[in-house]
Amino acid sequence: MNRFDQFQRELGIARNILTARLERLTELGIVERYPLPDRANTDGYRLTPKGEDLYPVIVALMQWGDRWLCPKGKPPTALVEDRTGRAIETLAVHAKGGKALSFRDVRFARGPGATAKTQVVIDGRNERVLGTT
Amino acid sequence: MNRFDQFQRELGIARNILTARLERLTELGIVERYPLPDRANTDGYRLTPKGEDLYPVIVALMQWGDRWLCPKGKPPTALVEDRTGRAIETLAVHAKGGKALSFRDVRFARGPGATAKTQVVIDGRNERVLGTT
Repeated sequence: MNRFDQFQRELGIARNILTARLERLTELGIVERYPLPDRANTDGYRLTPKGEDLYPVIVALMQWGDRWLCPKGKPPTALVEDRTGRAIETLAVHAKGGKALSFRDVRFARGPGATAKTQVVIDGRNERVLGTT
Repeated sequence: MNRFDQFQRELGIARNILTARLERLTELGIVERYPLPDRANTDGYRLTPKGEDLYPVIVALMQWGDRWLCPKGKPPTALVEDRTGRAIETLAVHAKGGKALSFRDVRFARGPGATAKTQVVIDGRNERVLGTT
C-alpha cells in the first residue's frame, strides 16, 4: 500500500486532510514520493530512512497502548520476529550495561550543541525531577 | 514546575490552548490535578503512572531528533544515568535475546484481543512490509 487512494480508503479520512498530512511528512523528509513502475502518471509514497528510523518510537507507543488502553491482557496484535516467530522485547530506557531506568534515574546533561538556553532547560528539568541542578 | 502559570511561561503558548491540553491529558489519565500543599486554592498537575510510563516513547523520540534534526553530532542535551553519569542506551527494537530489529524483521500476529477487523490490519501490514500474509 503506497498510493494516495489506498491510504485514503484504509484511513477513512478526508482527501484534503490526507493531502495536507502527506505534504507535511514529505516536507519533513519522513515520506517521499516516487514514480510507480506499474502506473504511469501516478506517484507512490514511501518512508525515507529518516522515516523508517522512527520505528522505535512507534513500537514504544504501541506497547504503551497495549499496557494502558486495551482490556487487560488483551492487545489486538502482537509483534514477533519474522524469522523466529518469537515476541519482540518491550522497549525500555536502559543504562549502559542493561539496567532498566525510570525517568527518575535519568539526569539531563549538556550535549555538544548545548547553548545558554539549553542550560536553563537542563537545570529546570533536573531540579523538577531530581530536586537538584 | 507543576503549576499552570509555570507551564504557561515556559511553553509560551496561549492560556486557552494550555487549558485545553491539560484538560485533554487529564481526561486521558496521563496527567492529574492535585492540591498544592503550599498554596491554598491552587491545584498542581503531575504525571500519573500511565503518564510516567510514556517515558520510553519520549526518549525514543528525543533520540530520533538528535539523529535527524540536529546539526550532525551536536545534540543540545545528553541523557545520563543519574547515579553513574554515564550516557543511557539508545532505544531500539530487539528480539528476545537482544538482536536489534528493523521494521522489516518484524511480523504482526494476532494478539489475545484480536478481532476479524484486526486480522485485516495484520494481513495488510505483513503483505506491505514482508510481501506475505
